[in-house]
Amino acid sequence: MENRALILFAHGARAESWKAPFERLRDMTQRRMPEVKVTLAYLELMEPRLQPQVTALVATGATDITVVPVFLGQGAHVLRDLPLMVDELRLIHPSVTITVSGAVGEDPDVLKAMTDYCVKAARP
Amino acid sequence: MENRALILFAHGARAESWKAPFERLRDMTQRRMPEVKVTLAYLELMEPRLQPQVTALVATGATDITVVPVFLGQGAHVLRDLPLMVDELRLIHPSVTITVSGAVGEDPDVLKAMTDYCVKAARP
Repeated sequence: MENRALILFAHGARAESWKAPFERLRDMTQRRMPEVKVTLAYLELMEPRLQPQVTALVATGATDITVVPVFLGQGAHVLRDLPLMVDELRLIHPSVTITVSGAVGEDPDVLKAMTDYCVKAARP
Repeated sequence: MENRALILFAHGARAESWKAPFERLRDMTQRRMPEVKVTLAYLELMEPRLQPQVTALVATGATDITVVPVFLGQGAHVLRDLPLMVDELRLIHPSVTITVSGAVGEDPDVLKAMTDYCVKAARP
């Protein structure tokens, strides 16, 4: 039986406060899908990084891992760094299916919600 | 009469593709509020930066400017750098009202849309 896991992949920052919205996003997503293990991983400055997180999930039996870039735009991190990291992970874990989704900020419904927020911000 | 403007303030990146979702967000927001001038500004790596953008808006008559940090989290850029930049802008333009909203990623509706996206990504 496939054992699915989700990794919300974020940039990371020096300020601990950076984590809060990603942790909320993880918790909200986990509540909606108790059958899928939902975790976080960071590109830099924060732990855990992507590779140890994948290794940890595989060690607990994950066979199907989806990586969601929680980025607003498709910058070099999403377009260049992440595919290289995932290629390497596929070599390390050949029996695991690793899928990468589009960046969260590219989703039309997320863009719609951000637009609503900007409109509200301009009309206090 | 007050003359309102909105600045969507994003991080910036080396890859030109980084701009696309912010430009879409600007265009979508502008369509919803034709009476408010909606613009972009970047913290680093991309133009225009915040200070020249504010100067340009003031030069065209803006008297009430709202800055929306289009960031997912409250990292050092939003918590430390942006308030310092805005304090300086208020000194330069004492007759202009400059307001800073919370980061887009902290909005409950944006978080909800991001959660929906993550759930969809895990269930292809």
